[in-house]
Amino acid sequence: MPESKTKKRSAILLISCPDQRGLVAAVSSFVSNNNGNIIDLEQHVDTEAGVFFMRVQWDMLQFAIPAEDLNDAIKSLAKPFNMQWNLHFSDDVPRMAVFVSKHSHCLLDIFSRILSREWNIELPLVISNHADLKPFAENLDIEFQVLPISPDNKAQQEQEIRALLKAYRIDFIVLARYMQILSENFVQQYPNRIVNIHHSFLPAFPGARPYHSAHARGVKIIGATSHYVTADLDAGPIIEQDVVRVTHNDAVQDLVHKGRDLEKLVLARAIWKHLQRKVLVHGNRTVVFE
Amino acid sequence: MPESKTKKRSAILLISCPDQRGLVAAVSSFVSNNNGNIIDLEQHVDTEAGVFFMRVQWDMLQFAIPAEDLNDAIKSLAKPFNMQWNLHFSDDVPRMAVFVSKHSHCLLDIFSRILSREWNIELPLVISNHADLKPFAENLDIEFQVLPISPDNKAQQEQEIRALLKAYRIDFIVLARYMQILSENFVQQYPNRIVNIHHSFLPAFPGARPYHSAHARGVKIIGATSHYVTADLDAGPIIEQDVVRVTHNDAVQDLVHKGRDLEKLVLARAIWKHLQRKVLVHGNRTVVFE
Amino acid sequence: MPESKTKKRSAILLISCPDQRGLVAAVSSFVSNNNGNIIDLEQHVDTEAGVFFMRVQWDMLQFAIPAEDLNDAIKSLAKPFNMQWNLHFSDDVPRMAVFVSKHSHCLLDIFSRILSREWNIELPLVISNHADLKPFAENLDIEFQVLPISPDNKAQQEQEIRALLKAYRIDFIVLARYMQILSENFVQQYPNRIVNIHHSFLPAFPGARPYHSAHARGVKIIGATSHYVTADLDAGPIIEQDVVRVTHNDAVQDLVHKGRDLEKLVLARAIWKHLQRKVLVHGNRTVVFE
Amino acid sequence: MPESKTKKRSAILLISCPDQRGLVAAVSSFVSNNNGNIIDLEQHVDTEAGVFFMRVQWDMLQFAIPAEDLNDAIKSLAKPFNMQWNLHFSDDVPRMAVFVSKHSHCLLDIFSRILSREWNIELPLVISNHADLKPFAENLDIEFQVLPISPDNKAQQEQEIRALLKAYRIDFIVLARYMQILSENFVQQYPNRIVNIHHSFLPAFPGARPYHSAHARGVKIIGATSHYVTADLDAGPIIEQDVVRVTHNDAVQDLVHKGRDLEKLVLARAIWKHLQRKVLVHGNRTVVFE
Repeated sequence: MPESKTKKRSAILLISCPDQRGLVAAVSSFVSNNNGNIIDLEQHVDTEAGVFFMRVQWDMLQFAIPAEDLNDAIKSLAKPFNMQWNLHFSDDVPRMAVFVSKHSHCLLDIFSRILSREWNIELPLVISNHADLKPFAENLDIEFQVLPISPDNKAQQEQEIRALLKAYRIDFIVLARYMQILSENFVQQYPNRIVNIHHSFLPAFPGARPYHSAHARGVKIIGATSHYVTADLDAGPIIEQDVVRVTHNDAVQDLVHKGRDLEKLVLARAIWKHLQRKVLVHGNRTVVFE
Repeated sequence: MPESKTKKRSAILLISCPDQRGLVAAVSSFVSNNNGNIIDLEQHVDTEAGVFFMRVQWDMLQFAIPAEDLNDAIKSLAKPFNMQWNLHFSDDVPRMAVFVSKHSHCLLDIFSRILSREWNIELPLVISNHADLKPFAENLDIEFQVLPISPDNKAQQEQEIRALLKAYRIDFIVLARYMQILSENFVQQYPNRIVNIHHSFLPAFPGARPYHSAHARGVKIIGATSHYVTADLDAGPIIEQDVVRVTHNDAVQDLVHKGRDLEKLVLARAIWKHLQRKVLVHGNRTVVFE
Repeated sequence: MPESKTKKRSAILLISCPDQRGLVAAVSSFVSNNNGNIIDLEQHVDTEAGVFFMRVQWDMLQFAIPAEDLNDAIKSLAKPFNMQWNLHFSDDVPRMAVFVSKHSHCLLDIFSRILSREWNIELPLVISNHADLKPFAENLDIEFQVLPISPDNKAQQEQEIRALLKAYRIDFIVLARYMQILSENFVQQYPNRIVNIHHSFLPAFPGARPYHSAHARGVKIIGATSHYVTADLDAGPIIEQDVVRVTHNDAVQDLVHKGRDLEKLVLARAIWKHLQRKVLVHGNRTVVFE
Repeated sequence: MPESKTKKRSAILLISCPDQRGLVAAVSSFVSNNNGNIIDLEQHVDTEAGVFFMRVQWDMLQFAIPAEDLNDAIKSLAKPFNMQWNLHFSDDVPRMAVFVSKHSHCLLDIFSRILSREWNIELPLVISNHADLKPFAENLDIEFQVLPISPDNKAQQEQEIRALLKAYRIDFIVLARYMQILSENFVQQYPNRIVNIHHSFLPAFPGARPYHSAHARGVKIIGATSHYVTADLDAGPIIEQDVVRVTHNDAVQDLVHKGRDLEKLVLARAIWKHLQRKVLVHGNRTVVFE
């Protein structure tokens, strides 16, 4: 992990706006005129949609504008271009919650990254509709809340969940094989801040039991897809996908076995991109900078 | 290509039958009792369906049963086990026809393999509904028949095509980006003998314009699928698939560009498996031996 | 994981011997004549070396020869063909020891597989030359022995290690980023029973700091290699390899970051193959059945 | 291929220079102040070496500086920053020569891309030390010069080759499995303008017969590497690599078979990157923009 790049405080500015002449010049001049040194700059133009996307990261060490005044300065920069923007700092420590059901592989993989300090985050809260994985969280002194869900209590439990997320000041949510569908209302509270892992190569095999469907169809490759959750099931903007080869020799359980490793990796890569502020969403598609 | 394995005449026996005790022993004893040396043996049991599959290849050099009597001998072997079987010889030279429309990349890739003698086949006939690619075939003295298709003449043109296939003694057909749908009637004449390439990772994006659909969905990986053609469009048994990574930076034309190389490779690998008699079909799934 | 295949007790026989007529017939007849049902059979002939390899697995449920007499029966089967063989049972529970230094990712990944009962093994012992990872093992009540190594005490520490391996009845060893070189003497005690992960695509970049070397060379793909340890450093028979794409944008730390996920996956796949008794070694090469 | 992006004339400027504040601002302001619309902009900082790399492409349609004056304008831009730079136009049609020996697959793949107009180039000349592939070139009316090479005439033949390259106004050379080593003197005439394909995953298996070496080592993955040729054999800056999985079942001839498809693809991708002016070389490493 590029610690060397993030040790010193840097600012990360994400921009999207209608494409027009002079955008890169305006932003890069803003940085250099204020004594900022650009560490990373990526831009993309969606020529069909006429939309410009940019991610620029610069060193704050000698930057002329102090962090607390930066929002206002960027407002002025953004206005004439009609930019939508987000500002982050490299030393922000986002607070993540993980939702799980009974499968342990994604959760344990996330835990191992927390233990090894691979990610610069806090993970204060795990929520589940089952108690099965509670011991793993307790081992690490992470709060594990069990909120069983039935058709009757679903709305109420979501209320509980929202209260917990608030209490724990959660910035974004990871669904690590959480087998429940969140309500549209809930999802809209966390736009582009709920990262899901689906165990198929979307848009193939959405919904339940994708490994069974993949086996029945006789595909030679299976996949996993990580995406932001929207109101439409398994149809949100895709952040990352990957695949693994299978053969006629793989029974459904073998697909499950091979898929597990794929799921945890694809999810981890998506979280990592999200943490680095490298994902911009436009409609149902993402720009994922390198 | 394993020429060393195929230079000497060998027999290739493909078997499928209800799974039962003693199948491998019966077949392998049949070979060794007749002085055959097994070059290759692969078997697979579909435990769910209770079906046994086998491919065994043995040297004919000192084999006690001459090639012309082998069919009868295998009939006797097969009967008590209720085997379905096919017998081939390594020095058979299958006769292939290629159907194309306007895209040249798959056809030219096939031509290059013919020119370099990578495959031990004859390619006496190319059929197209357009004349665009005719010069490439003429360069190689391969017959190129143009049969334009309209809603009115489709049935009649298929008649023509069948006559040509008969006249040229064609064993199997390759649809190398042939943009026409063959009639159910036609397809049934060539069961598991029409190999198609579809430019998506099936079952995602069947039908027309898959690259446009993939781009609209914002997938991070595109694929190509080669399958035997059945009456259901893009739903036949899959022989081979592969994928390539794409990004937000790839416009539809870039997907087309990246996809072309994928299509020609996946199709070539499927043809190669078919030629080596390594593909067995059961329902809508394949067993593809290594 | 194919639990359904292994739940019932089955025998697994691994064979290698000079290639000759009648091998498959002899083995498969031995199984079926004794009322065994073959679950899985794979064979390979190394035509250059003239060596035959086979793995056959059959159901013991109605098998005529009881498990305790099977060794003798196979001895008789093997003798005329000069077979080398190993017999295992699907319900054997191998005892694994893991050696680590300071990197946690492979160890934690192994722990997560133990926790989720992905593998049917015992992991009673972890050995390290550093104490850093001890807390992770203690969390799971796994014995973690710290044996610091210096040029002076190396031979003595290996003595200690051997005593521990004996005391804990260890069947095989996994070097999960253990940064020490084992003595030739030690290695010879565990032929094809020490699985290492090396963080490069061998034979490129053997030895120390392969990510630095890969970065300096400017490769576009990095890899990881799992192999059995032999007296020659990083030169033992390869079990599994995989790769991941990198770009000019990846600094050495980014290679380390991307490589970590690769290492843990490649190592886990190699262990899984080893556990399934699917790896046969011949000279410096492996036959890894599917 | 992104024809839509290149149909209209655009300028492509490649820059490398010591990293310093204000580089992106200076270049992007130069473009926008002269009414240029940036189509594509990518930058990279090698923080270790302290070197800045940039590729910027802009529309020439309404650009204030005419193409014939652009060199001078960029000279002024470049001077204060000590930039090394290259200027290209999207409608330049580079002239490529291909060197081959006896293997046809890479040459035929290049021919098929020429025939389908996938690349916007001229291919007026093929040079070989053998006559074997001459008929394929003649089919397409491409000049094919046979210059047999022996230890005695090597220097003289290189003289001939240089004369031909001059006569045909060749911009860059592709070694499409050309089995001869070019002299240091020759190589220095075409810095970063000779693209080679080597049939291994470099730095593993440089030199002759890499498939034999890969087989002997028992690797589970083979690769191909395309790089610019330097005086050191198989050690030049890598442009592109890719790999394919192999097994114990693959004899050397099978590696050759699988490798052929890999070689032609990796070479084609490297040529495509070179044609798009997306490759910058620094020391022995490349920056390959997306």
